[in-house]
Amino acid sequence: MIVIVCANPALDITYAVPSLRHGGSHRVRQVREQAGGKGINVARVLKQIGTDSVVVGFAGGPIGEAVHADLDTAKISHKLTPIKAHTRRSIAVVDADDATVFNEPGPVVTPSEWQSLTEQFAAHVAGASVVVLAGSLPRGVAEDAYAHLVHTAHDAGAPVIVDADGHALRHAIAAGPYLVKPNVAEAAELFDGALESTEDVLAAADALRARGASAVIISRGSRGLVAVTEDGSAFSAHSRQTVCGNPTGAGDALTAAIARGVAHSHDWTARLNEAIALAAACVAVDAAGHFDEATRDEIKQTVEIKVLR
Amino acid sequence: MIVIVCANPALDITYAVPSLRHGGSHRVRQVREQAGGKGINVARVLKQIGTDSVVVGFAGGPIGEAVHADLDTAKISHKLTPIKAHTRRSIAVVDADDATVFNEPGPVVTPSEWQSLTEQFAAHVAGASVVVLAGSLPRGVAEDAYAHLVHTAHDAGAPVIVDADGHALRHAIAAGPYLVKPNVAEAAELFDGALESTEDVLAAADALRARGASAVIISRGSRGLVAVTEDGSAFSAHSRQTVCGNPTGAGDALTAAIARGVAHSHDWTARLNEAIALAAACVAVDAAGHFDEATRDEIKQTVEIKVLR
Repeated sequence: MIVIVCANPALDITYAVPSLRHGGSHRVRQVREQAGGKGINVARVLKQIGTDSVVVGFAGGPIGEAVHADLDTAKISHKLTPIKAHTRRSIAVVDADDATVFNEPGPVVTPSEWQSLTEQFAAHVAGASVVVLAGSLPRGVAEDAYAHLVHTAHDAGAPVIVDADGHALRHAIAAGPYLVKPNVAEAAELFDGALESTEDVLAAADALRARGASAVIISRGSRGLVAVTEDGSAFSAHSRQTVCGNPTGAGDALTAAIARGVAHSHDWTARLNEAIALAAACVAVDAAGHFDEATRDEIKQTVEIKVLR
Repeated sequence: MIVIVCANPALDITYAVPSLRHGGSHRVRQVREQAGGKGINVARVLKQIGTDSVVVGFAGGPIGEAVHADLDTAKISHKLTPIKAHTRRSIAVVDADDATVFNEPGPVVTPSEWQSLTEQFAAHVAGASVVVLAGSLPRGVAEDAYAHLVHTAHDAGAPVIVDADGHALRHAIAAGPYLVKPNVAEAAELFDGALESTEDVLAAADALRARGASAVIISRGSRGLVAVTEDGSAFSAHSRQTVCGNPTGAGDALTAAIARGVAHSHDWTARLNEAIALAAACVAVDAAGHFDEATRDEIKQTVEIKVLR
């Protein structure tokens, strides 16, 4: 079983409008709604590739109930600790040209609510094949919260994959997780200056290993990814074919592929191949957490993996 | 007791952002949320002026529950018939320059759900001093639905105020309500051409009386209103002082003032004075259904009522 922590889930709402006008009043043509947040997106992709997981997180208020109900509909196992504050919404207004996104600040979680989550986590992690810590921490939770969960997972013998950014990521790395997976902007934020060339990205990945992570994947959008494994081997991977569409959630599909690969003890080549294909297949579909199976199968034939070291 | 039908309530959500950018990703600074829809706004204003009412309407899904909970918090009596489809949201994104609004299409109501509402309505209307039918009809409900409610109210001896537009208004007028209260744009929609001068507006009000309404108020924004009473007298009313702010909900404050005036058998001068003052005091406050009491008291001293006929 893969245990996924989604500490700051959201109700993702998508509004289709003909054209967004500042100051205008819009009749929304179509409303789509699904439970979201990085961890839940990862669980959704895992479900579609036939891998069960359990999502540990928070849910509060009527929006929390909607997240609950949507996970039930999607048959994704979950253990959401009830909180007093309300789960956040994220609204994407999509017109012919672009997507305009509004992210609510989200709930403030109390110390005792966080304590309940850590107890749920400890109970589930006992039998976990892999642990995924994905997305932002809610307000009210200490910056080093992920670091504590990494230690709990280690005590239970489960490898941890962290997909976070900023201080939460910094602290998590110092706790020595199996793998961290920032994108190139998130990785750059931990250093001074941009990461342009493959050499830059590789150097950053090495630096993150030096700080505590056993393995590192840095994703680079349509340019693919750079991976440094637990034994120091380094690869780059990308697809020769570009997929156009909505990149939201592509990183979560990548995390899902890697988590499954780790759970099944697949080798790094298989993991990276699946990761590139799933991420691209997710771009082909509008909603985060979903992917197009035909695109996945097609892209798999076009992935190029280079041994950098 | 004033009975208010709010057949298509909404959860009104307001997002404060520094500046709306098309294609951008926005951190929402502040989220406000309250039950809305014209009928609920009327009930909220009535509450603040010390007049109890009961809202009859629909509520479905988690958004319906949020509407429910907010009415309970505001201590507004309600009898919301449960529906299978979900209550709609309306989102206003407010930045330094403007408000940009997204209205969801709202639920489709089934014939048996509408039947339940009419039964609730009939049960409450027995002891009603005034009935208010406010706002749009939900999808799935016949265009002449308000006309049937007007007949039910008449059978119970209760005068009816209608605040609607388009076909729902057209049919309601033919059923002979006590008063209709379109704004100038809504009134113009029922005729050919714009209503510019006071003479135009008065002629339109007379035409609406000829179609079946006993009395008519046509509101004209900062230009005040034109009223024709049940005995054919005509007035214009406006404030000498202009209030700057958010006009959303000002029409609902006007309806609330008139409903209270009718319930208490106030004369037309008192009704119009209160209506102009409450509408202006509502403009002074950001959220619909709320008003500033100091502004109300101040504006009351500046209202000019002219006898047109």
